[in-house]
Amino acid sequence: MLASRPAVHPVESPPEATENPRRVRMKDVQGMGGTPGGLALRVCQFVLALGALCVMSTTNDFASATAFRYLVAATGLQSLWSLALAFLDIYCLLVKRSLRNSQVLCLFAIGDGIIYTLALAAACASAGITVLLGNDLNSCGMNHCARFESATAMAFMSWFAISPSFLLNFWSLATK
Amino acid sequence: MLASRPAVHPVESPPEATENPRRVRMKDVQGMGGTPGGLALRVCQFVLALGALCVMSTTNDFASATAFRYLVAATGLQSLWSLALAFLDIYCLLVKRSLRNSQVLCLFAIGDGIIYTLALAAACASAGITVLLGNDLNSCGMNHCARFESATAMAFMSWFAISPSFLLNFWSLATK
Repeated sequence: MLASRPAVHPVESPPEATENPRRVRMKDVQGMGGTPGGLALRVCQFVLALGALCVMSTTNDFASATAFRYLVAATGLQSLWSLALAFLDIYCLLVKRSLRNSQVLCLFAIGDGIIYTLALAAACASAGITVLLGNDLNSCGMNHCARFESATAMAFMSWFAISPSFLLNFWSLATK
Repeated sequence: MLASRPAVHPVESPPEATENPRRVRMKDVQGMGGTPGGLALRVCQFVLALGALCVMSTTNDFASATAFRYLVAATGLQSLWSLALAFLDIYCLLVKRSLRNSQVLCLFAIGDGIIYTLALAAACASAGITVLLGNDLNSCGMNHCARFESATAMAFMSWFAISPSFLLNFWSLATK
């Protein structure tokens, strides 16, 4: 009688097929958009870029060198970009949402890449001329070498602050 | 009687758990290491960096500006790096293997990132001085402006050729 009794084995339901197995989400790394670290980086970028812009603008002869004019334009653009993204980060933190939309991430990665390249180019061009004036020609007497150097240093620090944002955005775009 | 007969339902075996669902491999994109496109990029980088190095070295006053000395050093380093990776690509193509080792990819991505930054910095610093000499000071009469401009242009093209290598290596490192 035991043999004829149907044995009931509990069968586990098969795991639900995920819609897209490649869509593995990266954890929120501090420094990415929508995190407190990301906001801190954006604020650093903004402050340093604005500092470089102000220091360079206060010299009355910056307009005589193309590289210095370009530094003013590039740091101006960078400060606007960083300020806009800082406001976006504040919004994300307030509504407790993280930036996970693919199109938005792609836009930010491309924008950060462009600003990263422009900032490095401006800082290096200014550094080339500053070093030429200060070390190679020794003509700091009739030029504002200290201010040029300060502005260049701030532009380099600002570029340094934008690097993690760019690399993290690019990384999270690649792992989407 | 029908109700007491045990009903046999075929149960599909659950899909086998993959060992590591995150390990999704990217297809070989032309331009990555170990592909013909990657080899072509490396050869371009090498030729352009070597061209910039030779043109700049043939001017007898390049050593008077720090930025030009830096351009010579950076393009020299870049040509060595590109040549080494070009040989590695040739080896990979001959034995028909692709570079998929995580550590090696990480090394190449970091190396490409460093060379990318150095090449852009050298090209921009030289461009700053070249534009200063040619446009702002109009002192091309006593300088080798044409050679400086050629070397700078080649350095920029070489940087442009290293960009896809860097971005593709970084992308494939992120998607490992």
